[in-house]
Amino acid sequence: MKPVGPIPAGYNAIGGELAIGGKRASKLVEEAGRTPLFVYSRAHLDARVAQLRAALPRRIGINYAVKANPHLAVIGHMAPLVDGFDIASSGELGLCIAVGIDPARISFAGPGKRDDELEAAVGAGVTLNCESEGEGLRALAIGQRLGKAPRIAIRVNPSFELKGSGMKMGGGAKPFGVDADRVPALARMLIGEGAEWRGLHIFTGSQALSADAIIEAQGNVLELAENLANDIGFGLPKLNMGGGFGIPYFPGDEPLDLARVGAALAERVDSLPSVLADSELCIELGRYLVGEAGVYLCRVIDRKESHGVVYLVTDGGLHHQLAASGNFGTVVRRNYPSAIASHYGAEPTEEVNIVGCLCTPLDRLADNAFMPRAEVGDLVAVFCAGAYGASASPAAFLGHGPAAELLV
Amino acid sequence: MKPVGPIPAGYNAIGGELAIGGKRASKLVEEAGRTPLFVYSRAHLDARVAQLRAALPRRIGINYAVKANPHLAVIGHMAPLVDGFDIASSGELGLCIAVGIDPARISFAGPGKRDDELEAAVGAGVTLNCESEGEGLRALAIGQRLGKAPRIAIRVNPSFELKGSGMKMGGGAKPFGVDADRVPALARMLIGEGAEWRGLHIFTGSQALSADAIIEAQGNVLELAENLANDIGFGLPKLNMGGGFGIPYFPGDEPLDLARVGAALAERVDSLPSVLADSELCIELGRYLVGEAGVYLCRVIDRKESHGVVYLVTDGGLHHQLAASGNFGTVVRRNYPSAIASHYGAEPTEEVNIVGCLCTPLDRLADNAFMPRAEVGDLVAVFCAGAYGASASPAAFLGHGPAAELLV
Repeated sequence: MKPVGPIPAGYNAIGGELAIGGKRASKLVEEAGRTPLFVYSRAHLDARVAQLRAALPRRIGINYAVKANPHLAVIGHMAPLVDGFDIASSGELGLCIAVGIDPARISFAGPGKRDDELEAAVGAGVTLNCESEGEGLRALAIGQRLGKAPRIAIRVNPSFELKGSGMKMGGGAKPFGVDADRVPALARMLIGEGAEWRGLHIFTGSQALSADAIIEAQGNVLELAENLANDIGFGLPKLNMGGGFGIPYFPGDEPLDLARVGAALAERVDSLPSVLADSELCIELGRYLVGEAGVYLCRVIDRKESHGVVYLVTDGGLHHQLAASGNFGTVVRRNYPSAIASHYGAEPTEEVNIVGCLCTPLDRLADNAFMPRAEVGDLVAVFCAGAYGASASPAAFLGHGPAAELLV
Repeated sequence: MKPVGPIPAGYNAIGGELAIGGKRASKLVEEAGRTPLFVYSRAHLDARVAQLRAALPRRIGINYAVKANPHLAVIGHMAPLVDGFDIASSGELGLCIAVGIDPARISFAGPGKRDDELEAAVGAGVTLNCESEGEGLRALAIGQRLGKAPRIAIRVNPSFELKGSGMKMGGGAKPFGVDADRVPALARMLIGEGAEWRGLHIFTGSQALSADAIIEAQGNVLELAENLANDIGFGLPKLNMGGGFGIPYFPGDEPLDLARVGAALAERVDSLPSVLADSELCIELGRYLVGEAGVYLCRVIDRKESHGVVYLVTDGGLHHQLAASGNFGTVVRRNYPSAIASHYGAEPTEEVNIVGCLCTPLDRLADNAFMPRAEVGDLVAVFCAGAYGASASPAAFLGHGPAAELLV
């Protein structure tokens, strides 16, 4: 038997079925017209932002990293809730503009920005998080051509990392940002050439569950920002301190202690060095804002046995849930939180393998999981599906096409 | 320094540039209008089928597994070259019908076929490779409703596997097919209920480079088919012996010895047991047919250094080349065959990291590779991109969208 991960708070049963946003799973599928289906819960999104506002000092802005979930309705829902938006492509810029977000609230990071993307961003007045000297020069040239000063922050490759993070974005050689020791010269050049100076972006890692690690990284970020601002000789209009707040996916994962992170940050904000005293400060969160707000629903198409093992074959799979299948940057596959949505909260009675409909042994949703008995037609739920689900999976693989998406 | 995999035969330089199908990379990009771009070579597709025809006994049909590359022009090109088509979804059925393939040449395998997929297949006269008793009953009911006898083969879960294969599809409990000991009863039931009996599908694994392993698996498949046919009490109109022929991706990989596989198969075909004497025999190949025919081209957007390490940041990445990035069912990342297409065949002079444009450390195309010097604007080629590339990657991830595709 292999345990499944912890189901996020805020999901309950109505009439024996999983309910999301007060609606039964079967009802949601009816509304969407089909399975597989991603359901995103407004109540969860609102609650998470409220938790953050309550825990963090008022001074700290919250940016939403659109890459975590670029579903239009989700971006639109986040628009009035958060302070800024971080994008990673001109495609994401288009989505933000489509829901009416002011480009002045948007910043654009990404190591391989094409000229046409720089042009779209400079033209719209988006802040570029500049990733290299070469990119800075290209942005300046494009600004000159457009007759518009590009708004530029520098993304720093810090020499420290976010400890225990799922993905390290700092510490040693990296394709992201500019090595810290070269930042002052680049900043002075950009300012000298007429860029609108926007400050620094220091991203150290993602998906950390340790408050200590985040507190330490934030301390290091503020210290580095202070030193760089002094070296540059200009203040920082804005400092994006990065994110890294993780969510529990797997058995044994404990939620981040947000109160401790907030308290430590409040202390730091109260004693900022003078060079950062007027800086706008923000953190950048993707997964932490939307991950637990999403549930992936798919339907049992077949219930079969092979050599005594029960398989629930669903109409979903890794083409929508690559990370949950354990095939996206994972070494050892573990079970995401999952459940039989049609019998939510019922006593588990059997060990099953929940698999997708794809003709590949990679397509697994839950291995050797202890579940209530499910029959053909029942719905399966995979939780923590709000971030890096639909858009981070190979939707065209084997021709089944993308899942439906619904914000409730 | 980390070596890159072996570049497949049939690619050469014209004017110092990689040429595909006799055209320079830069010319192909011009034709397609943009990078990133998958180029598929007709000459390679033709040559591979010709090699197979020459090596295998005439009696053995060749099926193309559409999942490997569902690009319409590729399916269309394969249509007159191969004998049959294996599909994994009604989406793939639609593609085959769109290029005019006779549904009688198509068989449909996949553990989670929905009712609407079964209906489309039965209606069109496609052979279903039945994966379970439950699916068999659903297919019969749908046939009855449509007033059309479903054409059904049974997919067998064999008790043996293809040794050394990248993905094992047999040996022990599996979600695929029906355990061999339950096949005779199911076959007799299906035949008794009026299905058009089409025989067996026995798939043991994929991506094997050892001729011995494939020869052994084919021997086991024929023996199992003989025993099952005897138990069923009916001959097998058709036997799909599966595939499993691999291609070299990584340093040290040796190409499959096709001549040996063909010779062993010829011997077996010459001494078939009487119960298989009239059976149509075929193998099912995807990757082996199209993998080496594809090249992924992307452009260097930035050349940057971090702590002394050179990064070539391209406009491509894992959103088109998930497997090459090492994130699709891979434990240890190795370098696919890759090259600087703009300086093809030039002496390597420096160690570089070739990365994609995505804002994630997962997005790598070649680590610590020894390459000729490349500048911004140069083209990078990743080989072995013909199978499980464009369609098996998360094209929507980070909003850059899918790559262009071109058959030349």
